[in-house]
Amino acid sequence: MLDINFLLDLAIILISTKVLGLLTKKIQMPQVVGALIAGLILGPTILNVVHETAFIDKMAELGVIGLMFIAGLETDVKEMKKCGKSSFVIALLGVLIPLGGGFLVAIAFSDTPLSAMSQIELLKNIFIGVILTATSVSITVETLREMGKLKTPTGTAILGAAVIDDIIGIILFTIILGFADPSIGVMSILIRILLFFVFAIIIAIVFNYVFKHLSDKYVQKRRVPIYGMVFCLMLSYVSEKFFGITDITGAYLAGIIISNVNQSDYILGKFEVLSYMLLSPIFFASIGIKTHITGISSNLLIFTTLLLLVAILSKIIGCGLGAKLTGFTNENSLKIGIGMISRGEVALIVAGKGAVAGLMSKVFFVPVVIVVIVTTLLTPMLLKLVYKRDTISNIEKYSS
Amino acid sequence: MLDINFLLDLAIILISTKVLGLLTKKIQMPQVVGALIAGLILGPTILNVVHETAFIDKMAELGVIGLMFIAGLETDVKEMKKCGKSSFVIALLGVLIPLGGGFLVAIAFSDTPLSAMSQIELLKNIFIGVILTATSVSITVETLREMGKLKTPTGTAILGAAVIDDIIGIILFTIILGFADPSIGVMSILIRILLFFVFAIIIAIVFNYVFKHLSDKYVQKRRVPIYGMVFCLMLSYVSEKFFGITDITGAYLAGIIISNVNQSDYILGKFEVLSYMLLSPIFFASIGIKTHITGISSNLLIFTTLLLLVAILSKIIGCGLGAKLTGFTNENSLKIGIGMISRGEVALIVAGKGAVAGLMSKVFFVPVVIVVIVTTLLTPMLLKLVYKRDTISNIEKYSS
Repeated sequence: MLDINFLLDLAIILISTKVLGLLTKKIQMPQVVGALIAGLILGPTILNVVHETAFIDKMAELGVIGLMFIAGLETDVKEMKKCGKSSFVIALLGVLIPLGGGFLVAIAFSDTPLSAMSQIELLKNIFIGVILTATSVSITVETLREMGKLKTPTGTAILGAAVIDDIIGIILFTIILGFADPSIGVMSILIRILLFFVFAIIIAIVFNYVFKHLSDKYVQKRRVPIYGMVFCLMLSYVSEKFFGITDITGAYLAGIIISNVNQSDYILGKFEVLSYMLLSPIFFASIGIKTHITGISSNLLIFTTLLLLVAILSKIIGCGLGAKLTGFTNENSLKIGIGMISRGEVALIVAGKGAVAGLMSKVFFVPVVIVVIVTTLLTPMLLKLVYKRDTISNIEKYSS
Repeated sequence: MLDINFLLDLAIILISTKVLGLLTKKIQMPQVVGALIAGLILGPTILNVVHETAFIDKMAELGVIGLMFIAGLETDVKEMKKCGKSSFVIALLGVLIPLGGGFLVAIAFSDTPLSAMSQIELLKNIFIGVILTATSVSITVETLREMGKLKTPTGTAILGAAVIDDIIGIILFTIILGFADPSIGVMSILIRILLFFVFAIIIAIVFNYVFKHLSDKYVQKRRVPIYGMVFCLMLSYVSEKFFGITDITGAYLAGIIISNVNQSDYILGKFEVLSYMLLSPIFFASIGIKTHITGISSNLLIFTTLLLLVAILSKIIGCGLGAKLTGFTNENSLKIGIGMISRGEVALIVAGKGAVAGLMSKVFFVPVVIVVIVTTLLTPMLLKLVYKRDTISNIEKYSS
């Protein structure tokens, strides 16, 4: 007979992620932070009531696939094209500098000197940098919207850069993961990635047409999001199975392909329900459930602190420099840099995938989770600080 | 590394249940029939491309829990109270006569004579009757709505009876399942069921209050359906774990408890998305995937035919008699009897649960699926036939 303990696991995960999410929301933090903390509490670190099972792993995988599909669906390709050069430069420097910074921190704490490293050791160190590249712009967007600053030039630049940043990040991540399989030569990895890009372009052209047609013909019909689901699952599967490209890249691509059809908001709405009602809480909780914090060594503590500092400064410097180079004032460049600090689910997704692929020791989950939480908390505070002067001068202007 | 074949399984299940569901819809049949056929095609009987796995079993369980929760949410307790006596008599006879009929068919095909049967053999025969009790009124409702006959006295009687029928059916089913566990004595089963009813009443009072409060306070907030989900999972778990009452009874109860709060439609909407986007297709397909039709014996063929006849006639006679006894004319009693013929997901749910509990051999899946499909197809045709005269006489009346 079917063991129904998984029902209890799900109930515990859903209630605790929601309640803690609401608590963190109450103190102006995103709910993701609460969900992460819920996982840590349920896992071996504290209560040890929910354990990693094959079922939870698969549900978490569906959760992360759903999140990446949603991220793809929310990508505003037009916005990205509009901001063009400026956003691209901000995004590129905002990826390269954290990548380099994370890599340097990792090397500093590595037992092996750089010259003696094997390919996999080198990749592991680069991977720490990769984790630092992904911006989670949702917190910034919410903060800016609250302050009425979303439609300013700095707001638009941040939005555009965050989109491009995600795409560069996922390409980088895909390449690094490709190299992580020791059984395959460098040349064949590059060919595989190249083939995937060719495949992606063909699929994008064909299925963008297919979904445009479906979306126009079957307005508000259930079949449209269901076909979207099937497309997302298939692309995730094919990416990983036939090209060795991680499934979430396929899911993200599927989302981007459908993002500009007429009913993309309708499809998005259905996926959001699926995600928040069941799948994404399992994903976020599973990170904590997999993480076992037992007596952090002082070495790891220093590593965490350093990684955190680099995570914050490298985005401010990288994105700020990009903004400055494309004509923003010093003040606005600082705003843009600060708006790009926060890391969110993408950093966790990348870390999780890396751990599964053997690119990251589970020990590093703790620093990564801390980086995500702290940068997420810090961003709205710093944003309010730098935009405050703005508001005051506005008030002064109006009152004069 | 995580084996991602489950992504492909899900994609195949979702696309095939949807496409076949749309095909059956096109020929005026409910989509459930298409989804069932999809499962049969994917399973060992025909293509053998999707196999039963622990993951699919658990997802299917979540699917059936979701369906029963939705059924509970859709229960109109007020409507039931309003129709009162008439609906109750129709439902009661509409349960007892199919129960007796199915039992007799099962006994006729049993190898053991009735006098020599063990308790479990007896239960197995009764169980065939239990499967025949559950009415699936959705097809009737759709047909009547199309013909503009839903708000007639016969339409109201059918609706009310179908609700009570479901409740009697699930109580019966719960009792039979309780007896199926050979390790427990009859007395302790009865006590357990009694305790469950006490528990159910207390939970109903407390949580109806809690959800009314939540529903009024947090209008259109995500937390409300999430708490509903948690409540449904918890009640499913507790029912089975602590009372030995099958989890779907708990899910159904959870739905009824929340059915009359202000935002029950909002909650229902979210669960419908969860259900049709992912969970219920897996449940329906899993029935076919578990069913292996290989050379049906002539004996099983006769059994199927007889069971089908009994399924149809026992509802017409039982419900028709109930209607007649409570004052309906012969013609209207026939309409009510015909409106109650169709079996649907509940019969499949009961059969599936029975198979897991050792109350039904998997061989009987085929007859049950056939009964569900044929009764579902027949009901709208017969309804159109008996209501046709009505429409013609109405037209005559108006044109005169």
